[in-house]
Amino acid sequence: MKPLDGIKILDLTRILSGPFCTMILGDMGAEVIKLEPYPAGDDSRGNPPFLKEESMYYVSLNRNKRSVVVNLKEQVGKDLFKKMVKDVDVVIENFKPGAMTKLGLNYDVLKELNSRLIYCAVSGFGQTGPYSERAAYDSVIQAMGGIMSVTGQPGGIPTRVGTSIGDITAGLFAAIGILGALRVRELTGKGQMIDISMLDCLVAIVEGQIARYFGTGVVPKPVGNRHATATPFDLFKTKDGHIIVAVQNNVMWEKFCKVINAAQLFVDPRFVTNATRCDNEAALKSILEPILQQKTTEEWIPLFVEGGVACGPLNNIADIVKDPHILAREMIVDVPNHAKLGTVKYPGVPIKYSDTKCSIERPAPILGQHSEEILREFSCSEEEIKSLKEIGIIK
Amino acid sequence: MKPLDGIKILDLTRILSGPFCTMILGDMGAEVIKLEPYPAGDDSRGNPPFLKEESMYYVSLNRNKRSVVVNLKEQVGKDLFKKMVKDVDVVIENFKPGAMTKLGLNYDVLKELNSRLIYCAVSGFGQTGPYSERAAYDSVIQAMGGIMSVTGQPGGIPTRVGTSIGDITAGLFAAIGILGALRVRELTGKGQMIDISMLDCLVAIVEGQIARYFGTGVVPKPVGNRHATATPFDLFKTKDGHIIVAVQNNVMWEKFCKVINAAQLFVDPRFVTNATRCDNEAALKSILEPILQQKTTEEWIPLFVEGGVACGPLNNIADIVKDPHILAREMIVDVPNHAKLGTVKYPGVPIKYSDTKCSIERPAPILGQHSEEILREFSCSEEEIKSLKEIGIIK
Repeated sequence: MKPLDGIKILDLTRILSGPFCTMILGDMGAEVIKLEPYPAGDDSRGNPPFLKEESMYYVSLNRNKRSVVVNLKEQVGKDLFKKMVKDVDVVIENFKPGAMTKLGLNYDVLKELNSRLIYCAVSGFGQTGPYSERAAYDSVIQAMGGIMSVTGQPGGIPTRVGTSIGDITAGLFAAIGILGALRVRELTGKGQMIDISMLDCLVAIVEGQIARYFGTGVVPKPVGNRHATATPFDLFKTKDGHIIVAVQNNVMWEKFCKVINAAQLFVDPRFVTNATRCDNEAALKSILEPILQQKTTEEWIPLFVEGGVACGPLNNIADIVKDPHILAREMIVDVPNHAKLGTVKYPGVPIKYSDTKCSIERPAPILGQHSEEILREFSCSEEEIKSLKEIGIIK
Repeated sequence: MKPLDGIKILDLTRILSGPFCTMILGDMGAEVIKLEPYPAGDDSRGNPPFLKEESMYYVSLNRNKRSVVVNLKEQVGKDLFKKMVKDVDVVIENFKPGAMTKLGLNYDVLKELNSRLIYCAVSGFGQTGPYSERAAYDSVIQAMGGIMSVTGQPGGIPTRVGTSIGDITAGLFAAIGILGALRVRELTGKGQMIDISMLDCLVAIVEGQIARYFGTGVVPKPVGNRHATATPFDLFKTKDGHIIVAVQNNVMWEKFCKVINAAQLFVDPRFVTNATRCDNEAALKSILEPILQQKTTEEWIPLFVEGGVACGPLNNIADIVKDPHILAREMIVDVPNHAKLGTVKYPGVPIKYSDTKCSIERPAPILGQHSEEILREFSCSEEEIKSLKEIGIIK
């Protein structure tokens, strides 16, 4: 069995935040029915790059989901949607606040049809508050949420996190929220609404910076790659790339000096304690840089590992997808049977249970791949399905 | 009621990943008993900055928890721990793999005492795989997990995300895993073990970069603040700071040109479509920069908002804690009654339910603040408590 066996999710989300949430819930065994807008589907189906005309952006986020295309702008489509809502556990959407009300399909309407329904809305700024109706993109939220102000090289320009961390964090908190609401429903028999804001979620993950600011009054700045209070604890160039080494105290410092064959550094008065190493960080870095550039990253790593020094290579994406540990953890997996692409490679599921298993049962669907089978499951007759197609309600 | 009312968590975690997880579960109503090592407690109690000798790092992550200090190195302490395990729902730890086995307290031992126990282990590399026993720090995991390779200015040095995103993402996935295991237990009556690796979790959140790499064979690089396929969609300097503007198509471009009073740009052949704007991005940026520097960020924002252009200020931490929207969303809240600090300001809970409420009932505990009351709840007599103190088992 899987943790969410028996849970049915009607998923109106598109692009990233909502789909990331339902991807996790699908990995955990929920049945995710992705209801895509008629006729073109999730906007992200138009996002590059494409392989055999399928958006890899879409393919990546929509594994373990089935696709049905429904025209929610027409009354017949709305009726079909309402019929489906009666028979699912969760509805999730990530429209701008107000969009579901305009369609006549907001939570207040849907809960009348299904009092056990859990309704999750994910948006840039949330359903309430002065910015609620503003358009949001991940970059805008990263700028407004503070994370950009602490990311970047010291003295340099504040820098966007290279993944869409605003969307992803909102997707993770939405998954947590839905799981919590399922437990409440177990106890009370009642569903409820969950309001997730990308901006709220980014505020939640800069908790450390907020605490430091309230503690000191000093506004945190971009910190670069160096540890603020330990040296050497930084990214260094090697002969062919980079390595990160993490020395937190004198025990590790001695080990580090042994590995790089530089006993003289260990006794150098400038570097005898972590405090003096921090004071003389630039001098130490200028000594260490040429040493670390004498070998490749792949040569250094086993030396530091065997020497007991925490370290790691700076992996790019090509490196991680072939890393033996990442492969051993099943964090890159082949999933067969994409309707156009055949086998697709996916990041695995990072929740590893001892008994129940999360898994990727199917790759992303092509547009409307499961429209007919899903409608049959919701008791539509063959005639009905045929007629809905003809009048432009489903695809 | 709250979603996790009635769930008791025995929390051995320290520093960041595990405490972030149990903070969320505590916000959701779980009773979190933080079992800290004797005599000095969670290592992060030594992390700066300090206010009245309390670590703000620790204070930030340990709200909604009670502290009991137990010496797990002594048999009497182990016995006390085992007694507590019989009566809780979840045990969570983030030691290096093997540490609980050395203590004689791993999952195999504990499940014999409590078959309903959910045991979550969070670590840098997970309980299995070739790197499993290596030491891990957030920076090392960020380097190895690929996120650093896509963060930074174009052509610049790969850059660490300014928050400890490796720890935080692991904490979020651990919370999801525990909630899933609670549902399984509801159905089967049995607990299980969950193995969360920080590296796995970072691989999971670079899904988009992995998909792009598999789709094109091109290794993603640091992307800076600019959108890859839309222009102008970037961070710009203003008179007093920065602003991010997001123009995705020609409708928005026309609005943008109106706001900045530059109708001539809208008809300029270099900038007539998004494609040509992308081709002439540098030229356009050099024109826009001096214009945007004519006003302050605070002057520009309402103009763009009213003009229908997605935008946002580049907020630092001092800005977000006083932002009217963030305050209206209760994302900065005062929590009274810290034993030494009085009222503490915390980021709020980003999961907003319509019926059940998450909340922050208490600030972080001082070391051993609740040792006695907790032991009483686990049926220790006053005499026992006194004796455990005298022989150095509790504090």
